[in-house]
Amino acid sequence: MTYKLWYWPGIQGRGEFVRLAMEAAGIAYQDCARERGADALVALMHEMTGRTPYAPPFLDTGEMVIAQTANILLYLGERHDLIPPAPADRYWLHQVQLTIADMVAETHNVHHPIAGSRYYEEQKEPAKAYAEQFREERMPGFLGYFEAATRANEGDWLIGDRWTPADTSLFQLVAGLREMFPRRMHTLEKAMPGLIALHDRVAAGLPGIKAYLDSDRRIAFNADGIFRHYPKLDGT
Amino acid sequence: MTYKLWYWPGIQGRGEFVRLAMEAAGIAYQDCARERGADALVALMHEMTGRTPYAPPFLDTGEMVIAQTANILLYLGERHDLIPPAPADRYWLHQVQLTIADMVAETHNVHHPIAGSRYYEEQKEPAKAYAEQFREERMPGFLGYFEAATRANEGDWLIGDRWTPADTSLFQLVAGLREMFPRRMHTLEKAMPGLIALHDRVAAGLPGIKAYLDSDRRIAFNADGIFRHYPKLDGT
Repeated sequence: MTYKLWYWPGIQGRGEFVRLAMEAAGIAYQDCARERGADALVALMHEMTGRTPYAPPFLDTGEMVIAQTANILLYLGERHDLIPPAPADRYWLHQVQLTIADMVAETHNVHHPIAGSRYYEEQKEPAKAYAEQFREERMPGFLGYFEAATRANEGDWLIGDRWTPADTSLFQLVAGLREMFPRRMHTLEKAMPGLIALHDRVAAGLPGIKAYLDSDRRIAFNADGIFRHYPKLDGT
Repeated sequence: MTYKLWYWPGIQGRGEFVRLAMEAAGIAYQDCARERGADALVALMHEMTGRTPYAPPFLDTGEMVIAQTANILLYLGERHDLIPPAPADRYWLHQVQLTIADMVAETHNVHHPIAGSRYYEEQKEPAKAYAEQFREERMPGFLGYFEAATRANEGDWLIGDRWTPADTSLFQLVAGLREMFPRRMHTLEKAMPGLIALHDRVAAGLPGIKAYLDSDRRIAFNADGIFRHYPKLDGT
């Protein structure tokens, strides 16, 4: 059957990491809440029993429902041979994927340092303080780690000689941080040539991604998603 | 060889989730930074090249170094047959494990809402606001999800008829939240009998855990770890 992806319809969000891997691999999927609306997603979550997701995104494979972005990507990687079979390679890629998830969570905290359920406008002051340490400490730390990860392989990709979901995820992370912190990224990118080359390779070198980014399936960055451009939170 | 676990020596922290699984399974390990000090851990991280961890905990298996708590537990589960082999079961358990990791990260944010690198005393006001929404919204949400997870299986454990690392992790999560939020947990526990029963079963029903908790290998909760008791951040 065609996979059913469930995620909030108006944003890229965490769902985008799943979409990108499926688009790159040419895996067919229905983006259910974009077709049926957010209410259908909420209603479904209320109806589900047993092994339920805590939050979107989740993927209905027909045999099971899998939640947690990195877990969905692990499933797709194993099921569709997108990742190498050697255990050491699998755990390494999953480690990188989970570290991407950590950075994404902290990126969301930048504009929601107090409560995810309240508006940014209600937490602008702590957001300013959070953003400062994020720009100064966390961005160099995480991005330096991902830069080093690109150098741990001699090939063009994070591992071996082909892309994996961790590569498409790093593309999205770089694209999102450029959207959210254009000034800061302008400074930091000088020290991360491997990561930028990887970003460019995913954007231009994978036919599935190129077609996706040009399509209306790619939701534009916007002020409801994780990677939001608030100029006051950016800085060199 | 004996596994080498590397984690900050003075706290339970994220390393504790790894320790508990190994203690329950009777897997031999060296807790390296407790033997050699935090400086040895820092020095090692500076020396490492190639596929390096972003942060502790990490496990040196002799063949590879694995980081990210949930990833280490996935490795131990697969390598030592601590988890069922069926894919649907594996992804379900990993989903729960990753959701535990999400709650642990938010729990740390309670006392460090602005910057992990600065003292709690420097961020007490935002911590108060963060703690309020965490107690009111996030604790019922996450714990309600874990309670439902215990009911998704007819047996005594989260899955099948034996414990897995997700069970020992839920034990630690409940124990930690009781330490940090005694008043709030007193209220919430009434609605989570399955989760409390699971906590008790891990504490008293697994010989390896019972011996560990009685040993000096178990570091006590303290004001440097994730689960810290600041009475001002608690509430009914």
